Amino acid sequence: MEKTSINIALAGFGTVGTGLQDILQNNRDWIKKRLGKDINIKKILVKDLNKVRTSIPDPHTIFTNNLEDLTEDPDLDIVVELIGGKTTAYEIISRALESGKSVVTANKALLAEKGPELFNLASKNNLGLYYEASVAGGIPIVQTLKESLAGNRIKSLTGILNGTANFILSEMTHNQIDYDSALGEAQELGYAEAEPSLDVDGFDAAHKLTILIRLAHGEDYPLHMLPIKGIRGIDPYDIGKAKDFGYQIKLLAQVKEKSGSLQAGVFPALIQNDHMLAKVDGPFNAVLLEGNAVGPIMLYGQGAGDLPTGSAVLSDIMSLVNKETGYNNTGFVDSNLPYANMLQAEHTVFKHYFRFTVKDRPGVLSILSGIMGEHNISIAQVVQKQESEGQFVPVVFLTHSAQEKDVQNALQEINELSFVKAPAIHYVIL
Amino acid sequence: MEKTSINIALAGFGTVGTGLQDILQNNRDWIKKRLGKDINIKKILVKDLNKVRTSIPDPHTIFTNNLEDLTEDPDLDIVVELIGGKTTAYEIISRALESGKSVVTANKALLAEKGPELFNLASKNNLGLYYEASVAGGIPIVQTLKESLAGNRIKSLTGILNGTANFILSEMTHNQIDYDSALGEAQELGYAEAEPSLDVDGFDAAHKLTILIRLAHGEDYPLHMLPIKGIRGIDPYDIGKAKDFGYQIKLLAQVKEKSGSLQAGVFPALIQNDHMLAKVDGPFNAVLLEGNAVGPIMLYGQGAGDLPTGSAVLSDIMSLVNKETGYNNTGFVDSNLPYANMLQAEHTVFKHYFRFTVKDRPGVLSILSGIMGEHNISIAQVVQKQESEGQFVPVVFLTHSAQEKDVQNALQEINELSFVKAPAIHYVIL
Repeated sequence: MEKTSINIALAGFGTVGTGLQDILQNNRDWIKKRLGKDINIKKILVKDLNKVRTSIPDPHTIFTNNLEDLTEDPDLDIVVELIGGKTTAYEIISRALESGKSVVTANKALLAEKGPELFNLASKNNLGLYYEASVAGGIPIVQTLKESLAGNRIKSLTGILNGTANFILSEMTHNQIDYDSALGEAQELGYAEAEPSLDVDGFDAAHKLTILIRLAHGEDYPLHMLPIKGIRGIDPYDIGKAKDFGYQIKLLAQVKEKSGSLQAGVFPALIQNDHMLAKVDGPFNAVLLEGNAVGPIMLYGQGAGDLPTGSAVLSDIMSLVNKETGYNNTGFVDSNLPYANMLQAEHTVFKHYFRFTVKDRPGVLSILSGIMGEHNISIAQVVQKQESEGQFVPVVFLTHSAQEKDVQNALQEINELSFVKAPAIHYVIL
Repeated sequence: MEKTSINIALAGFGTVGTGLQDILQNNRDWIKKRLGKDINIKKILVKDLNKVRTSIPDPHTIFTNNLEDLTEDPDLDIVVELIGGKTTAYEIISRALESGKSVVTANKALLAEKGPELFNLASKNNLGLYYEASVAGGIPIVQTLKESLAGNRIKSLTGILNGTANFILSEMTHNQIDYDSALGEAQELGYAEAEPSLDVDGFDAAHKLTILIRLAHGEDYPLHMLPIKGIRGIDPYDIGKAKDFGYQIKLLAQVKEKSGSLQAGVFPALIQNDHMLAKVDGPFNAVLLEGNAVGPIMLYGQGAGDLPTGSAVLSDIMSLVNKETGYNNTGFVDSNLPYANMLQAEHTVFKHYFRFTVKDRPGVLSILSGIMGEHNISIAQVVQKQESEGQFVPVVFLTHSAQEKDVQNALQEINELSFVKAPAIHYVIL
């Protein structure tokens, strides 16, 4: 791939494909800084050539409905399979690998079922078959298991891997609605399909778990052997009761090593409110794992959507290209990094916490807030403890967003006041 | 590196070095499955050859106090610099690179200051200079920024990067103690040095932030230009007051893009209790970032310690080796994955949530708990709502750990009781 531009073909041009194209367009210069090469969508395989498309790719991109236009084109470097399903997608991936092209795919169902066969085919042809987008959207869990934590034995891995199910459970938990209403809401927002079985019955999470088990353990846990229990029709009574006990119900995908065997499954479970996974709400995903060296690690992010999943597809494409080039030390082609444009501290904008220690006498609060007002600092909350008049008391302000320059000027003015005992204590608020 | 074994040398044999060696010993077979090669610590550079060492490496490992034994040995593949500091470490890294050896380092202070020069040297010699362990211990944030999210513009990045400062603040927050007591505790536990300035004054976090800014933005924000504010002497009053408002105080390292300029700094800040970073307690680290494609992503784990940091060093060594080999699709040398040993469902052990719907009459609770007892299920909590006698009411049990086989048998027996209205609702508890 020692060319100045990498030609890729997309098979399928739905949510993820258009997301990928948007990222390639918006971040074109940036990607070139990282990679030293352009990524060019040369061809897109679609079913219907006459369909009106709102997302317009590069005018040079060729639409085709003929698979051989992809597999027989010697000028294509990588085929990106985004068509979904298990028949055409299988044909595309296997024929691309047989014709000497590396493949990137987001197809969890296909990999869960035919992964071993396809990885063997890729290996036989010495090609890449990358699939970061197949699990947990933009979260780099595939890369993390395959490379960063490869030296660890993974003792346990617990994931919230289906954003739709997690959204439904979050809505039921936080808004006290029933299952059907939450599902309807998910469908309206485009998180759930009209036929939601893949998500709510746990099959999608099971596909992803199958892929993660292989990455973590180097063993195949066949999908049809995996215990799977979904959240269909879950009763708000139990969600409420769990809440009373300090728990939330989440749909989990889990694998643990137990004396040489793997205990794996997809199931709803109660998890305590102070557990890291309890904070993973709505359409977010997370994977919490325990390595025998690294200890506990959690990765968190958006599990679906055009741009997050497109980001994962792009990371695979860039990894495939990087594989052929020199050591990647800085993440950029040119190791000569320029100086950053540094925003001067006085122009930074934050909300603030101020504590003043002042003599408790009439008018103090009005003077303090008056000075802040003059410096464009608007107050969100103030607390002054009641003390006997004439004592020194703390007064605490939380402000709205303010410029650092204004903050410094106001604090200086306030610190010089006769009734102020000590310099203000001052923290920003995130 | 097309050899069956990779020879590495360690410069320094302290916490991280012994941690790395423990992992290499314990996970030797596992690493060979991943890499197809053994990793062999051939030499260790130490100051004092006569020092008594409790951690005994491979008997073939040669201890030396002569730098040239590392740089002049043609049989060494990778030099791992774990000596710290900025003088000898600089010499080791630059001489290793000049003599054609790739380098792995955990040295954040050196990279923050001399990174650009050393990366240029590595690039000139077409060698790897990898540094996953330099930021956030075992958390794969370097790899994530360099590869997985390389196609994203990073709009903001906020890290809890110093475990010592975070531990002190967590202790002050949760146990209402003052700064000096919390620091003393951190020192006793080995989290803080006798001279804690690097940690509590924010310099260590600043070193790490400098490295992350380069990875995220491809620009150098010189360390001496970075605004740094630590947590020394922070007043419990302000921590308590923040708590009253629903906030926690954390030491943050942050960089944001603001219309083409970078706003960066290390500073304590109030963050709301429901913020993902607010859950990062004690010696843990986390990085929350926002990419223009991937959206928000958080990585969480242990920021220090022999094994977590050793795990990061090992990941760099394995990446350097992988760089020279074929496409890494499965994370294992042999793409023919064996079937997993699958633990039979009946042997899985969990805590459980049961809800029974029963006729409210005397003795019901005793019968239910009696059946559970017979099946080795011990009860942690039970809630029965008071209703008028003879009505159907829910009874909820939380159990201690129980075998699935016992659970199934107990539920079957209970479901058949005459006063039980509907099959039990049943969830596991994580």
